[in-house]
Amino acid sequence: MRDGAANPTGQPRRVLVTGGAGFIGSHLVERLLARGDSVVVVDDLSTGTRANLPISDRALTFIEADLREWLRPASRVEEEFHEIYHMAAAVGVELVISDPIGSIETNTEQTSALLRYAADGSFGRPAVLIASSSEVYGKSERVPFHEDDDVVYGPTTATRWSYACSKALDEYLALAHHRAEAGAGGFGVVVARLFNTVGPRQVGRYGMVLPRFVIAALAGEPLRVFGDGEQVRCFCDVRDVSRALIDLVGTPTAHGRIYNVGSEEAISIADLARTVVDVLGSSSDIEFVPYDKAYGPGFEDLRRRVPHLGRLRQAIDFEPEHELKSTILAVAEGMGAAGAAR
Amino acid sequence: MRDGAANPTGQPRRVLVTGGAGFIGSHLVERLLARGDSVVVVDDLSTGTRANLPISDRALTFIEADLREWLRPASRVEEEFHEIYHMAAAVGVELVISDPIGSIETNTEQTSALLRYAADGSFGRPAVLIASSSEVYGKSERVPFHEDDDVVYGPTTATRWSYACSKALDEYLALAHHRAEAGAGGFGVVVARLFNTVGPRQVGRYGMVLPRFVIAALAGEPLRVFGDGEQVRCFCDVRDVSRALIDLVGTPTAHGRIYNVGSEEAISIADLARTVVDVLGSSSDIEFVPYDKAYGPGFEDLRRRVPHLGRLRQAIDFEPEHELKSTILAVAEGMGAAGAAR
Repeated sequence: MRDGAANPTGQPRRVLVTGGAGFIGSHLVERLLARGDSVVVVDDLSTGTRANLPISDRALTFIEADLREWLRPASRVEEEFHEIYHMAAAVGVELVISDPIGSIETNTEQTSALLRYAADGSFGRPAVLIASSSEVYGKSERVPFHEDDDVVYGPTTATRWSYACSKALDEYLALAHHRAEAGAGGFGVVVARLFNTVGPRQVGRYGMVLPRFVIAALAGEPLRVFGDGEQVRCFCDVRDVSRALIDLVGTPTAHGRIYNVGSEEAISIADLARTVVDVLGSSSDIEFVPYDKAYGPGFEDLRRRVPHLGRLRQAIDFEPEHELKSTILAVAEGMGAAGAAR
Repeated sequence: MRDGAANPTGQPRRVLVTGGAGFIGSHLVERLLARGDSVVVVDDLSTGTRANLPISDRALTFIEADLREWLRPASRVEEEFHEIYHMAAAVGVELVISDPIGSIETNTEQTSALLRYAADGSFGRPAVLIASSSEVYGKSERVPFHEDDDVVYGPTTATRWSYACSKALDEYLALAHHRAEAGAGGFGVVVARLFNTVGPRQVGRYGMVLPRFVIAALAGEPLRVFGDGEQVRCFCDVRDVSRALIDLVGTPTAHGRIYNVGSEEAISIADLARTVVDVLGSSSDIEFVPYDKAYGPGFEDLRRRVPHLGRLRQAIDFEPEHELKSTILAVAEGMGAAGAAR
């Protein structure tokens, strides 16, 4: 039971995915089920949706619950897990700005409770993935970002940085638990700093740029680019990201470390908008909107956000399979299928 | 009941001091009692001590409890407070390195629970002080530190910065609560970033430099200076600090803002050691110890930590009354009185 990757018993691995009904979580679940795992999803459906999951699959158990509630000793299912993917979070800067108190508390309390649960020892010796974010680097101007770089945040009066700060705190907790348990033959924790992840099932209503652009392009409405559009990001397909996360969990030498996960292919947001219009054959215009109007006064964005992937490539075999244009088409197809619900 | 400072009713102000049995908290309590307030202290005595408090004073109620437990709706005393001073915390970098999980969780959970309690509205409209730390600035090299400066932390693999990160998160929560309540005629929150605070009742066992030095000097043992001793700090007497905190709470225009609180008088740690030896007429030597030996490999310290006090001086009448030499004498006298217990 010690090695979630090797699965020596021949029995299906038991895997917990928190936030498994969300965008990235549901792709993870799909891949884990395809591997033959028995998967438990705990999700409060605050941003995820049942429709993201193959609910009829008998290897999947879906539990609609606040993770903190579910993890209380009185209520939780007491069972062993080989692997845990902690994807549940108040996701994204926009949500944090609109509900800073709830977002900060959710992120830190859930991660804290999940790690205590995993460390308990009564539930096996799981390998745990903690999903962090490239936001942790803050406004550091280094290109590319290395995992050991210093981080730079604006003053605490700028709510925007509270998301980065809460994710950094999750990382401290994860690494502290790993160190505390490492000597005791305990569980292993790996931290993934996710860069911009895109693909089917991502929704636009939390400010994520690609689904916003695709929705607008499909509707023939203007694509709204914040700022001058010259800010640079790297977009990685969620199917490549979810594969990397599973590989990291299955690599014991990766445990106790932090990994950038994403794409190195840089593109400006203005070029992304043009590519979306082009790929989808849309007649939409591209409209530039000052940050102030989108996020309120004084909003600070990053000019370039590019990961260094050397460490990830040393740990696992990582080469993104999906090109941005095919991802854009897949996103548009997914929206066609789901209709206005997206 | 709206203005904790003005106290228009003629009744004693009711004040809650969390961590009131600790070093700074107990000086606050003393000053509040002297003002005629009715003071409730909640302290778990994890680092504070009953001996710090005038327990026999009938205006003082001492409750030994974990703040999180005491704040649970089922257990807490339901009473109105005019002012709340939230001083309870896992204090100092050394404690955080030895118990990172507990320290992070204690700091964030206590502050989160306290702010929700204050925001409830059933318990009056208190003015709340959240004690933060100059650690929030991290390894920023600016001299002096302004409240609106960016902050810089090392990577999350360096546990040392988790203290700064947890305190920054407390600040985000405090300011978010203030903003949420400001429109609703709610409570006011002020954040104080405390720089090095010294004086009677500070103990040396959590790594605080001045009591360590005084203990060594009184015992004729070597004063251990970490690194080259050229790192510069500013030491402010706890009696000046506690007065400033009370004045900030009593200044409604200060609410919703962050204030550096400390001294601008800079001194190197090596000079501090020499001053202690000199003032106390000690025969002790001064011994330089590499950081690695004190804190483990890779420990990062700050070269200069100096506050800008312009904002504080605009808000309140602040001029420290106690000089460092007289503080050193007071610390030594306190230790003589308390003997080996310190």
